[in-house]
Amino acid sequence: MAHIDLPPLPGIAGLLAAHPHTAGPLNQLAEALLRGPSPLTPAQRETIAAHVSRENGCEFCARTHGAVARELGGADATDATLRSLLVIADRVRVDGRSVSPEDVAAAREAGADDRAIHDTVLIAAAFSMFNRYVDGLATALPADPADYDRHARALATGGYLQSPG
Amino acid sequence: MAHIDLPPLPGIAGLLAAHPHTAGPLNQLAEALLRGPSPLTPAQRETIAAHVSRENGCEFCARTHGAVARELGGADATDATLRSLLVIADRVRVDGRSVSPEDVAAAREAGADDRAIHDTVLIAAAFSMFNRYVDGLATALPADPADYDRHARALATGGYLQSPG
Repeated sequence: MAHIDLPPLPGIAGLLAAHPHTAGPLNQLAEALLRGPSPLTPAQRETIAAHVSRENGCEFCARTHGAVARELGGADATDATLRSLLVIADRVRVDGRSVSPEDVAAAREAGADDRAIHDTVLIAAAFSMFNRYVDGLATALPADPADYDRHARALATGGYLQSPG
Repeated sequence: MAHIDLPPLPGIAGLLAAHPHTAGPLNQLAEALLRGPSPLTPAQRETIAAHVSRENGCEFCARTHGAVARELGGADATDATLRSLLVIADRVRVDGRSVSPEDVAAAREAGADDRAIHDTVLIAAAFSMFNRYVDGLATALPADPADYDRHARALATGGYLQSPG
């Protein structure tokens, strides 16, 4: 049971519906980060979000963004640039201070530019927030696991400003 | 030295200036969370933000938001409601899943309502993001420590939509 009174919507959806005042900026942040201009494709960015959420043990976010990444065609898990950025995302997830100059040099070597490094750090940081928001209030998981795919199709098609994220 | 090319502005200020696309939603989130409607005063909310930032070892955020809380008149550190909410914020900071029903019951017992619990969880989650953004890119500290107070006065007076946060 959630720690506060929420409408019967899983994960972050109930929080966004019950707290519209903060839902606006949160959805705008997700849209800018995951769909806005970036050298990283939306599928790569959703893959970073899903990875951070999985490592943080946030089942709702991990399954949702994993499904969105698949809907968007997926990201090549063997791509050297993406692999180097996932190393940085892992560091940020644990502690921002643990990102080393060597981690950043390796990402540049693999083809990442400043904007890709920036976007990776902010995606990992933002999902360190979304995961804590969803789990810190003990929100419910979907009753039907097929809901992840339905929700993911809506997010892949319409983004984060049209439907609760 | 920062991990990416940034203008010579300390902490998050350089990131917001260099990346306006994500700066908008980040500033709007800070404004909604720290200044928008809430049962918690702005000084109490800044105190939670400073506490989380300090425990996360983010010097720029801890000193900035500590100074903003003081500018706003400070929060009573002996207040039972605030003390119970800082316990919840600490749990969220480490892992959202670690907030227990007992933590939430203790906060309710001390006078916190659903909205205060929600806002505390989201502030702790949001600063888990801001701290990682600032430190994950190795941003600079102010050259002059008096800059914290100058910046804090601007944020206390004008909020987060008028000046970089």
